[in-house]
Amino acid sequence: MDVLTSRFDKAIREFLAQAMPPLGAIADELAPLGQATEAFVLDGGKRLRPQFCYWGYRATGRADAERIIHAAAALELLQACALVHDDVIDGSDTRRGAPAVHRRFAALHRSSGWYGDPERFGQAAAILLGDLALIWADSALAQSGFDPAALQRAAPVWDAMRVEVMCGQYLDVVEQARGGGSVERALRVARFKSAKYTIERPLHLGTALGDGAPELTAAFSSYGLPLGEAFQLRDDVLGVYGDPDVTGKPAGDDLREGKRTALVAYAFESANSAQADVLRSRLGDPHLDTDGVTVLRDVIEATGAVARVEGLITERASEAVQALDAVSMDDNARDALVKLAETATTRTR
Amino acid sequence: MDVLTSRFDKAIREFLAQAMPPLGAIADELAPLGQATEAFVLDGGKRLRPQFCYWGYRATGRADAERIIHAAAALELLQACALVHDDVIDGSDTRRGAPAVHRRFAALHRSSGWYGDPERFGQAAAILLGDLALIWADSALAQSGFDPAALQRAAPVWDAMRVEVMCGQYLDVVEQARGGGSVERALRVARFKSAKYTIERPLHLGTALGDGAPELTAAFSSYGLPLGEAFQLRDDVLGVYGDPDVTGKPAGDDLREGKRTALVAYAFESANSAQADVLRSRLGDPHLDTDGVTVLRDVIEATGAVARVEGLITERASEAVQALDAVSMDDNARDALVKLAETATTRTR
Repeated sequence: MDVLTSRFDKAIREFLAQAMPPLGAIADELAPLGQATEAFVLDGGKRLRPQFCYWGYRATGRADAERIIHAAAALELLQACALVHDDVIDGSDTRRGAPAVHRRFAALHRSSGWYGDPERFGQAAAILLGDLALIWADSALAQSGFDPAALQRAAPVWDAMRVEVMCGQYLDVVEQARGGGSVERALRVARFKSAKYTIERPLHLGTALGDGAPELTAAFSSYGLPLGEAFQLRDDVLGVYGDPDVTGKPAGDDLREGKRTALVAYAFESANSAQADVLRSRLGDPHLDTDGVTVLRDVIEATGAVARVEGLITERASEAVQALDAVSMDDNARDALVKLAETATTRTR
Repeated sequence: MDVLTSRFDKAIREFLAQAMPPLGAIADELAPLGQATEAFVLDGGKRLRPQFCYWGYRATGRADAERIIHAAAALELLQACALVHDDVIDGSDTRRGAPAVHRRFAALHRSSGWYGDPERFGQAAAILLGDLALIWADSALAQSGFDPAALQRAAPVWDAMRVEVMCGQYLDVVEQARGGGSVERALRVARFKSAKYTIERPLHLGTALGDGAPELTAAFSSYGLPLGEAFQLRDDVLGVYGDPDVTGKPAGDDLREGKRTALVAYAFESANSAQADVLRSRLGDPHLDTDGVTVLRDVIEATGAVARVEGLITERASEAVQALDAVSMDDNARDALVKLAETATTRTR
């Protein structure tokens, strides 16, 4: 774990150490809610958003400070809300290699011998835990140590980011319901879920807190949008070809779910009629076995979609890095952002 | 509709008029999300929380102002999140006499001829709409027109209120799962869901925005806690004996759901063995018909629980009103809070 990541984790721990006792003061029964939030937030995230936020701040020329670590760490609480709710929405069983939050609470219901349906209880708890994380994200930013003027500069970015992530999730759900198929629409979802929410907005949040120049904000859009696209495309590839031991997600889950990613859209676009038949009949089949997963993987690769996506990833990542040259910024920040572009697009999880 | 309520509605409309266009700029498909939020928030709430917030502010001696109307109206967006998520959690079909939000989106899925399960789509949309409302609540308060110092005074109250409502919901869900039965635990849920969230915290929010004296804050706790209990007890009675045409909830829904209210807990406490048998066998039966509802109503009344609860409502409401005498405050505010105590405890919906 690098130094920055361990500082974010420490900031999250410090925030939760003062946010959780009020729950205990309300009722002992709330302990699992606090514990599950803590376990989820501290367990294995990539901390990409806090890193972008931190370097967006440093790029303005400001010195390292504890307050930007704390503000950036707030993004992990927002992300916890997004992921926990997403897992309820998708009915996912696992997250980061561990049982999803709604599954953990279903297990609590079972082991407590309570009445009613454990799954419904698990869903209810996960919805409320996500709400709590969303509220805590806000408190964590407000209590980061920035003065009111800095927080006021950050507010429009923070608000837009939060609205965009929920809208991106909704568009994603609509896209699945429609059965997808359009590259353009899949990329639009990616633009909001990854480009803006994961990269551009965290950078802008840091820049706003650091009172950076408008040119810096503009350069970060030119960096964030292509990089976000590359990031999402890497995600699409990992969702189909990733190593479950590394990604923490069961192999083929995206295929069973019928996820309408750009990769899948490109596969449809270039498929011959036999390939298209396989895609149509097997994608989204919840009972797809290992052989079925292999067949789909091979067909997607045979259409040329994987090569095309890998080419796009390289292209977009290089566009992103070039955009940084257009503006003057702190050298440490520039180096870090070049490295982050590489990490985000060559990662294996 | 009284003058204050129509001013809150206007403030909500104004907030949404500037919050919704960014959604349209992202994608046309987001229109139903914005429209459903607007329809939900503007349709028939009692506006109790904004009223308490407004009068908590006026009690500090400050003059009427548009900014307190806007800040108070933000509470309705928070409440929208709580209710929309609550309906998903409970699987409720209706809210305020209209289809619940998740049902509306299930219908959208059906009428669009989309793939997958309409109910799951409806749930997903309702979870995300609730998240959006929670985020918007925050923006609405921040944009109400108060200066940063006032908003900073309000922040701890706002944070505590939001955490408490989610914790109260979780305790409620745990209480249902446990099968309830304890008056003490049912009242604890009521304390957080109603006393603090509906009355005390909105008053404190207004007082903090108006920079009121600590004695005023203390008096509002002494007013809010018993009044909240009375409010919740009235809710319990309406849930079992209310007129569906007035409450907008189907008759007997609380009984079919097996809601473990203080009313039900008192009924168990005073039931003879035949009455206890009826309560145990019929409460929470999802197929309870009109006759079954009547039988349960009669048994609950026969145990003396209704009379006991009505007595408690009167007692608590009068305690609340007396607490206002302990402190000096603006006379208009005092009169309004005496009236609100009556409205909240004698209401028929």
